[in-house]
Amino acid sequence: MSTEPVIPNEPQGVSILTRVPGPASEALRARHQHFQDARTIHLYQDARKSLGSFIVDADGNTLLDVYGHIAAVPIGYNHPALLSAWKGGAFDWAAGFRPALGIMPPPEWVDIVEAISKVAPVGLPRFVTVTTGSEAVENAFKAAFIAFMRRRRGGASWSEDDARLSMINAQPGVNELKILSFEGAFHGRSLGALSATRSKAIHKLDVPAFAWPVVPFPANKFPLNEHVHDNSALEASCLQAVTDALDADGNIAALIVEPIQGEGGDRHASPAFFRALRDLLKARGVFMIVDEVQTGAGATGTFWAHEAWGLTDPPDFVTFSKKMQLGGFFYREEHAVPETYRIFNTYLGDPLRGAQLAVILDVIAKDDLVAHTKRTGEKLLAGLLELQARYPDVLSQARGVGTHCAIDARDPATRDAIVGAVRQLGLEAGGSGDRSIRFRPPLVFASRHVGLALDLLSAAVATVR
Amino acid sequence: MSTEPVIPNEPQGVSILTRVPGPASEALRARHQHFQDARTIHLYQDARKSLGSFIVDADGNTLLDVYGHIAAVPIGYNHPALLSAWKGGAFDWAAGFRPALGIMPPPEWVDIVEAISKVAPVGLPRFVTVTTGSEAVENAFKAAFIAFMRRRRGGASWSEDDARLSMINAQPGVNELKILSFEGAFHGRSLGALSATRSKAIHKLDVPAFAWPVVPFPANKFPLNEHVHDNSALEASCLQAVTDALDADGNIAALIVEPIQGEGGDRHASPAFFRALRDLLKARGVFMIVDEVQTGAGATGTFWAHEAWGLTDPPDFVTFSKKMQLGGFFYREEHAVPETYRIFNTYLGDPLRGAQLAVILDVIAKDDLVAHTKRTGEKLLAGLLELQARYPDVLSQARGVGTHCAIDARDPATRDAIVGAVRQLGLEAGGSGDRSIRFRPPLVFASRHVGLALDLLSAAVATVR
Repeated sequence: MSTEPVIPNEPQGVSILTRVPGPASEALRARHQHFQDARTIHLYQDARKSLGSFIVDADGNTLLDVYGHIAAVPIGYNHPALLSAWKGGAFDWAAGFRPALGIMPPPEWVDIVEAISKVAPVGLPRFVTVTTGSEAVENAFKAAFIAFMRRRRGGASWSEDDARLSMINAQPGVNELKILSFEGAFHGRSLGALSATRSKAIHKLDVPAFAWPVVPFPANKFPLNEHVHDNSALEASCLQAVTDALDADGNIAALIVEPIQGEGGDRHASPAFFRALRDLLKARGVFMIVDEVQTGAGATGTFWAHEAWGLTDPPDFVTFSKKMQLGGFFYREEHAVPETYRIFNTYLGDPLRGAQLAVILDVIAKDDLVAHTKRTGEKLLAGLLELQARYPDVLSQARGVGTHCAIDARDPATRDAIVGAVRQLGLEAGGSGDRSIRFRPPLVFASRHVGLALDLLSAAVATVR
Repeated sequence: MSTEPVIPNEPQGVSILTRVPGPASEALRARHQHFQDARTIHLYQDARKSLGSFIVDADGNTLLDVYGHIAAVPIGYNHPALLSAWKGGAFDWAAGFRPALGIMPPPEWVDIVEAISKVAPVGLPRFVTVTTGSEAVENAFKAAFIAFMRRRRGGASWSEDDARLSMINAQPGVNELKILSFEGAFHGRSLGALSATRSKAIHKLDVPAFAWPVVPFPANKFPLNEHVHDNSALEASCLQAVTDALDADGNIAALIVEPIQGEGGDRHASPAFFRALRDLLKARGVFMIVDEVQTGAGATGTFWAHEAWGLTDPPDFVTFSKKMQLGGFFYREEHAVPETYRIFNTYLGDPLRGAQLAVILDVIAKDDLVAHTKRTGEKLLAGLLELQARYPDVLSQARGVGTHCAIDARDPATRDAIVGAVRQLGLEAGGSGDRSIRFRPPLVFASRHVGLALDLLSAAVATVR
């Protein structure tokens, strides 16, 4: 279709010459393993030869990619706009040192900030930049705690006792503050973020956590029209659980929620659930943090997934990273911290990644890639539904918003077998939760890729039935 | 001197045309402030025109820099080796996307890892890369907790109860684990790192913290030969405080310590103190984390500051960031985590910053910049001692290792006045603690810069007496 984005010279299809990973990747892993844990690496990617939605690996294999470096590739590999900006010198000013952006940023950083501001969610015009999703979440938590305590003091400043006792981690009332999160949630891995993460035990074992509460998440069953009653009863009971948690503890400063649970297994709730959640939190004076690290930057068919909910009042904080190339959070004007240096660190992001992001955002806007992704997602989901109709003994629960799709295998072992088998056929896919296959392709993923991905997946499923 | 590093075309001196920050910087700040908190910004730096140890700002002012973006500039601005690598295409492979390094790194990443391994501290051959100092510390804590719990279980795996209860932040015995840190310490600002940070209340107020203990740090008084008795008594009492803390709580998994307290006011302890501390921790089975985020990468005249201590047994973990351009920690072989995905995140660093680091490390080695910095530091310290002898009513406590130096003003207001006044004369300096002026120049800082910095500082002090 002529309106679809085209990356010149993108491979027409996959080409598998060796096992994946092949001998060249394994030789690299052996060198790598001397110094770092390289066991998790799927393959070593030829960064120059990869193009568009296709990975070329160190062995010369060409794979179609629907995993996107864990949802972190916005406009595919080596997009011509990104390369020509690089080669044309657009980033040269960033070549000579890495600045502390809160102390002495270059003037170009202000241009980048203005470019990022153009994708600010409605109602959240201001933002802090950091480097990763975990740091985004940690700093949004801090901003929420600071705003909560300021309100609790009636806008007054802290006392001398507060200041003195904070130094021994004992400021009165503060250690009781909590973040409420959902079962299955993933919000990062540093100690604060990890205390709100509820995805898998392997992420949390042996690491001290704050005694923060958790409530069930209303993972909808699909197809929706066959589960209307169950889904709506589940959403009501989860809202009740949030209400009960807030009733039980007046120290919950904020709730954090992903628009679609990513690591937790692509679990979806309805826009109506999120609207009711927003209203409930607002009525209770509890801040709402929407964690868009995995869902943000267009993959769901709106730039931010929460835009599709039709909220009457915007969230308090929205976190981002992954496709955005650096981390950060947007916030409502009223949550600006009056005092300096409370939300601060040395780097506060990375101007080089920010400069690339500005080019990426320009491509997304000019090529209308968010609307394109919405259309592509409809085709992908239709294909997944067809696939599960063909293999009802293996596949179920096809679901998605935009290209942010998933499908379940009948059990964890089958899921792992499919992901393993399809890689050998030329499709790089990833799991989420215990039995889901997730799709996180870049925004340049188009109809031709959908067809190829579905063909490869179908062939892999046939081998594991 | 012919053996000193020379950056061709580096300015011969400072040149101040406007107030600093001038009207161009203030106009940028006004634009910037619409979207981010720009109040902390000293000036907007012309990233292309800055060279070597000299900043050129948006108003065309040329300042000598001894602050180095809070100690984060390793080889000065726009070092020719860095620019020629950039222009020569050495980083082009990194231009087209930002990878998840634990999933599909490019082959070039293995070269970078090998380059970093050449500066691994003795006894800590393996390392994890992340993006910032806070993430470095958070992940070192996690690695320490994991190793501690593995040992406590006698090497056995966790139980099903452990796994189940970890999901509600209640794994038996784990939330009691603690990190011991020192008064005045700065280890970062995310919730775990911040629980060990003890620098200033403004960093900690209103943010929940783990109930971790703190012990006094034996900040030596200078000159050392006039305070031998006091310093040695203070170090003994601080070691006793560590002993008492370990006696009082069997759940302390690790102690974290900076070789020189940075944010806390450039507070120094002796090598003998650190040797005794290491022995004490080893005897108790408590891990030692040396936080070299601010001291690492050569500024103290050894590549890692802790190398100067003469430890008989290396630390367990050593964190880094700032001059290293990305974050991470080195660890002893025996602390490798048997299971995958426990110390993990999406980016695991940044290959582009890593590629620049490899060039930087090459320059440091070829130009012998660590030895050079040791020599330069002796000149700088001698000059500071001379300065305090000239202005004994204003300055005291000149101290330093390498060029990682500081001097105290008589009170906080005088310190702020000096730092403010000297910027108007053309020296970008920063404070640490409540009354110290800190020196964090790049490793290319040389005799000619020392003389100029001291002249400017002297002139500024004269104006505030």
